[in-house]
Amino acid sequence: MEKIQLTPIGVIHTPFTERSHAPRGPSAANGAEGRVVVYPEFAEGLKDVDGFSHLILVFYLDRSEIAPLRVRPEHSPAEHGVFATRSPDRPNHLGISVVELDRIEGATLHVRNVDMLDGTPLVDIKPYSPLREPHAAIRQGWIDETHAAGETHA
Amino acid sequence: MEKIQLTPIGVIHTPFTERSHAPRGPSAANGAEGRVVVYPEFAEGLKDVDGFSHLILVFYLDRSEIAPLRVRPEHSPAEHGVFATRSPDRPNHLGISVVELDRIEGATLHVRNVDMLDGTPLVDIKPYSPLREPHAAIRQGWIDETHAAGETHA
Repeated sequence: MEKIQLTPIGVIHTPFTERSHAPRGPSAANGAEGRVVVYPEFAEGLKDVDGFSHLILVFYLDRSEIAPLRVRPEHSPAEHGVFATRSPDRPNHLGISVVELDRIEGATLHVRNVDMLDGTPLVDIKPYSPLREPHAAIRQGWIDETHAAGETHA
Repeated sequence: MEKIQLTPIGVIHTPFTERSHAPRGPSAANGAEGRVVVYPEFAEGLKDVDGFSHLILVFYLDRSEIAPLRVRPEHSPAEHGVFATRSPDRPNHLGISVVELDRIEGATLHVRNVDMLDGTPLVDIKPYSPLREPHAAIRQGWIDETHAAGETHA
């Protein structure tokens, strides 16, 4: 199959200008506030988005240049396949984060729990729906093990 | 910003060959079984993926040709902005589904709760981590309202 082309629909502004300062995933974002600015030509698609408390942002990790297939997340003693991690250095450089929606002003969404870099291109917004699955039924492989060892996960 | 280019890392096989037969979202998939075939050049990235019970698949909705900014999901009495829905007809045609991992054989993942069409190009796999948020704190705007009215959501 040929290449797939995406066009940014907006841009995400966050307090994080350097990779070393960005939280490692939304659960580490501690409520960090950001602004999602949707470009005017897509603004009509925001109707009724304000009814949702949480949104899924899909974005392009534009400052990731490499895509190794094995990575060693911070605090993990071992290497893992990139698809078993949330590393920003990954094939296709796509990031996904669930953020909390505070309010919408025009085509600007004020959100919390951002973990991406300032200026990150936005490619989609989807309403968040919780998985109907008891937490106990969810296994997280090496992440659970690293937690059990008293360390935080990347 | 210029265009973003993606390259498929694999292909998703499901029982659904026509849009009208595909479930409306993973929660309607009722355990439908599928196979995610990762291309050999990305297989090394699967190390330790088998430790996760649930995975996020990111895929390209290659049979969606239109991208209206307002859509009326089945069972919804009103139109909504496309970003307030999971409609496959959306800017950038990216789909996201959480599937249950049954087992991995070589570079083939056997999964449950697929809702995408057979032959859908895969662009990323991420480990699923539950949002640490009480279900009661999650509002789903028009979807909640449609449920409350005794209808199912799209």
